[in-house]
Amino acid sequence: MSAASAVLAVDLGATTMKGAIIADDGSSVATLRRPTPVPGALDAVVELTRELLQTAVARGYRVVAAAVVAPGIIDEAAGVVRYASNLDWTDVPLRDELAAALGIPVAIGHDVRAAGSAEQLIGAGRGYDDIFFVQIGTGVAATQIAGGRAVTGATGTAGEFGHIPMVPGGERCTCGQYGCLEVYVSGAGLARRYHAAGGGELSAAEVSARVGTDPIADQVWKDAVDVLAQGVVTMTLQLDPGMIIIGGGFIAAGETLRVPLEAAIRSGLAWREPAPLVFSALGNTAGVHGAAVLAYRTAGMADVLTSWHVADAAEVADGAGVAR
Amino acid sequence: MSAASAVLAVDLGATTMKGAIIADDGSSVATLRRPTPVPGALDAVVELTRELLQTAVARGYRVVAAAVVAPGIIDEAAGVVRYASNLDWTDVPLRDELAAALGIPVAIGHDVRAAGSAEQLIGAGRGYDDIFFVQIGTGVAATQIAGGRAVTGATGTAGEFGHIPMVPGGERCTCGQYGCLEVYVSGAGLARRYHAAGGGELSAAEVSARVGTDPIADQVWKDAVDVLAQGVVTMTLQLDPGMIIIGGGFIAAGETLRVPLEAAIRSGLAWREPAPLVFSALGNTAGVHGAAVLAYRTAGMADVLTSWHVADAAEVADGAGVAR
Repeated sequence: MSAASAVLAVDLGATTMKGAIIADDGSSVATLRRPTPVPGALDAVVELTRELLQTAVARGYRVVAAAVVAPGIIDEAAGVVRYASNLDWTDVPLRDELAAALGIPVAIGHDVRAAGSAEQLIGAGRGYDDIFFVQIGTGVAATQIAGGRAVTGATGTAGEFGHIPMVPGGERCTCGQYGCLEVYVSGAGLARRYHAAGGGELSAAEVSARVGTDPIADQVWKDAVDVLAQGVVTMTLQLDPGMIIIGGGFIAAGETLRVPLEAAIRSGLAWREPAPLVFSALGNTAGVHGAAVLAYRTAGMADVLTSWHVADAAEVADGAGVAR
Repeated sequence: MSAASAVLAVDLGATTMKGAIIADDGSSVATLRRPTPVPGALDAVVELTRELLQTAVARGYRVVAAAVVAPGIIDEAAGVVRYASNLDWTDVPLRDELAAALGIPVAIGHDVRAAGSAEQLIGAGRGYDDIFFVQIGTGVAATQIAGGRAVTGATGTAGEFGHIPMVPGGERCTCGQYGCLEVYVSGAGLARRYHAAGGGELSAAEVSARVGTDPIADQVWKDAVDVLAQGVVTMTLQLDPGMIIIGGGFIAAGETLRVPLEAAIRSGLAWREPAPLVFSALGNTAGVHGAAVLAYRTAGMADVLTSWHVADAAEVADGAGVAR
């Protein structure tokens, strides 16, 4: 009897590398988390994947592929990270470096596109072919799934939803433009605007927790909800998604976000129903699961994904089975 | 030797029906234009296509399929026009009615999506897989081509670019919302705003012709260009198209539109190059050619399209070979 199959899946973030061994039934065999050294991320991700490989083999798995998802401009076909400012990378041949180090097929992908695809295949968007997935953390990005496929764009840079100009003559963004969505909606933007309005130095989570009891929090939260709704309405009208999925740290606000956001989206759409609005099912493991999806596709085993359940994701999320 | 093949292609607009017999080399055998009666559009389009069929057969063609493109909410798979306000249609089974009347395979499609696909396959977007096509006439709609395919959306209503909310608290739109793109950018919007600013009752074309000599025209034109640029920048950031194509009556303004629009798009993008901005190559025949593309696909003869040239479109545009 042959060994069960597994893949190595890594979400290479600007601050943390999250790795996991994901078996072909969707279960998480082991996970491994490390800070991302910059510079030095390439050596670090090679080392992390080699450790995951050794663990997987030692536990009796046949490792069929690996995949790493990263932020920035990812040329998935060439296997090259064209540009990732937070990793200080330009034209890094990540796929071939990893394949040489691991001796198995490797794929690379874009973190938010991979997360969106994972939500579609094994998360909140199961059964939907047209999805708009918005990831709101420190910054904001989004993935359009159209006809079942994540839209990459002509230059691999689709998804810069955080920088769509929503407020003409609005506040300045770190990108150099004015009135970008993420000036108002992101974790960084919310904290900055709360402080600028005289509200002290709080995190975005702390600001959202004060909604209803702190007028300054109320105002910056309302602005965030209104601008996010404007962006979602804009994409609803042009893209006609069957579902809107919101992910990232922002959704920790729960009903404080969902209730006014649904109302603002509905009031911004004159003649059509809004698409259902849901929160991410995979949470902070959406990137790792996106990498696992990519790895199984690379191994020619995409059929295993049909049996996976969202609950598998929770196992990774709560840190069960951390390697070493 | 068998007869040459042809299809019947109809662009069913709210005011005019444009029909053509398009041979498999892309040439226009004959065209037929009629006002669209409302109510009564269904009988009229059946009659028009039957006349085209008779003409095609009389000229020795084997007619392999027909296609009609229309505005509104089109369910292409079911062959039903779900809703078309300007035609006063709800749930009209257009495909089956035509198939019964003609005895050949029939497809129906959405006018602006079909026009965008035609630009991609035989027009200005040849060779590009990711295109954002904006049609600016009385109103505004847009088609996203992603990975070579026109995005339809979950409910068949993708492309309502005219109603994306670009100006929070802006002027009221006919749709009931405020600050929609087409309040500022469309032919109707431009004429209305020029009049409201004290500039008299002129058509949009007349307003654009006065740019540079009439301060009111200058201002409403600048607003139109700025809001259109904001919309294009928004879609550039999220969709990452390889080309932006502008079509519809608005492009008659030529360099008066192109020069400031290119500048405004460039200044709205902080860190990325704009996609090339071009005008429609098919002009007012994009819809008819979109229908022809659809018809050849329906006949299983999509391969004939590869040999077509943009010049074929001009033949229809200038009315050569009008039937009867």
